[in-house]
Amino acid sequence: MHVAIVGIGLIGGSVALDLRRAGFATRLTGVGSSPARAEIALQLGLVDRVTTLETAVREADLVILAIPVDRIVAMLPQLLDWVDHQTVTDMGSTKQAIVDAIRHHPRRNRFVAAHPMAGTENSGPTAAQARLFEGKVAVLCDLADSAPDAVQTIEDLYTTLGMRLTRLDAATHDLQAAYVSHLPHVLSYALARTVLQQEQTDPAIFTLAGGGFASTARLAKSAPDMWTPIFRQNRTAVLAAIQAYQQQLQTLQDAIAAGDESRLRTLITEANDIRRVLA
Amino acid sequence: MHVAIVGIGLIGGSVALDLRRAGFATRLTGVGSSPARAEIALQLGLVDRVTTLETAVREADLVILAIPVDRIVAMLPQLLDWVDHQTVTDMGSTKQAIVDAIRHHPRRNRFVAAHPMAGTENSGPTAAQARLFEGKVAVLCDLADSAPDAVQTIEDLYTTLGMRLTRLDAATHDLQAAYVSHLPHVLSYALARTVLQQEQTDPAIFTLAGGGFASTARLAKSAPDMWTPIFRQNRTAVLAAIQAYQQQLQTLQDAIAAGDESRLRTLITEANDIRRVLA
Repeated sequence: MHVAIVGIGLIGGSVALDLRRAGFATRLTGVGSSPARAEIALQLGLVDRVTTLETAVREADLVILAIPVDRIVAMLPQLLDWVDHQTVTDMGSTKQAIVDAIRHHPRRNRFVAAHPMAGTENSGPTAAQARLFEGKVAVLCDLADSAPDAVQTIEDLYTTLGMRLTRLDAATHDLQAAYVSHLPHVLSYALARTVLQQEQTDPAIFTLAGGGFASTARLAKSAPDMWTPIFRQNRTAVLAAIQAYQQQLQTLQDAIAAGDESRLRTLITEANDIRRVLA
Repeated sequence: MHVAIVGIGLIGGSVALDLRRAGFATRLTGVGSSPARAEIALQLGLVDRVTTLETAVREADLVILAIPVDRIVAMLPQLLDWVDHQTVTDMGSTKQAIVDAIRHHPRRNRFVAAHPMAGTENSGPTAAQARLFEGKVAVLCDLADSAPDAVQTIEDLYTTLGMRLTRLDAATHDLQAAYVSHLPHVLSYALARTVLQQEQTDPAIFTLAGGGFASTARLAKSAPDMWTPIFRQNRTAVLAAIQAYQQQLQTLQDAIAAGDESRLRTLITEANDIRRVLA
């Protein structure tokens, strides 16, 4: 299959590596946002060639959008104009704004809205890695609006990447992603900013930073180009998640301020229930 | 050297493994809070024998307290009564309350206050692992109050564990630990509680939880026996850190609520500066 990957960064590059290795892609065309990144992707052998968006879409069998969600929304209507038999999919962290952007497009059914729940805090083609998706969950959304053969192609794609498939409507995806993905990014950004601010009066503050800090602040390395539009597109759900989180934080703060050890012990013990979820 | 380890859990057990392997400890005596845990520690070969606190202290050359900070404060004055030539040290996450507890003890100078910045979210002797401390930072506090030979013994201990040494007064340690260790635990507990609460109305909420959630919620597995007394003893600094964090969270929330992408991009870019600290 001839696969075109739009956005040859961490996600697009990692997909390319796995699809080539598995033989799923017999030809790989890349579309990059800058000549410099495209050149790196070529040198790394992630794709066979780099071309324009229109050429890539017209010649490919499968078009994968691995770009920030604002660019998906902006690009998708035009892109579907160039489509007849091709399957088009995206890998963005929001789904509602994306399906809304093409709700009445005559080629809507060639598009499959998807979100593979994988990534790292790094970006760009040099961050691409094999088996990034293996064992993780891919969400497919609003499949009733997609043609059965297009859905089959995308199911094959994610099966090839070693992912477990789950199906949700776009609104439910966005709400769930707000809690388990977007909120963790917000709180990690807030933590990084808090300690960086403290560093201004306490220059050695990071000397004691160990594994716990690294774990909770890791997501704060994530790029603004990717995350700014996610927070905008999923604003309502993200704000609801932040508000629920602020209440929990306040509850813990109150117990600490009151010196109420019994209460604090209960709150922590309840939080420990997360062991059910985290191996 | 005959080393007594009080508390043969994750930390004490891991210390035992490394000290025996390096030949630093020629004899290892354990003191456990329960016969069951002591039995496990013996079966795992972490210590050679288990005995009472008083016997262990009187017979050892070096006594290491690897127990929750409330128990260190409660135990230390009595324990120093049994000491003449021995060196005693602790591995607790707070320092001020501990040094305060023995400030006027006639054997104060046999004690060296320390905090190796290492650990995992697991606990108990089965969680012990070799090389847990390697390459990390150990903080030694208020060394002017300790005898030079006792300080030398503890420096040798941490060098044997492969740690880098840093020296701080207890108050500075507690403030810095509040930001880079205690605060991350608070926000991880709050995150876990937020999503567990959401699970009550949305049972599939964790389906999409991936690496980002795992990273930020990992510390929420940490035990209440360890963390409740840390938050109590370091209450002032922890509350200051939480307050600074809440302001940063509010700043991010305001930018998201206002749909102010330019502002949000700036806030995220500033947070990305954490790459200086996190490899």
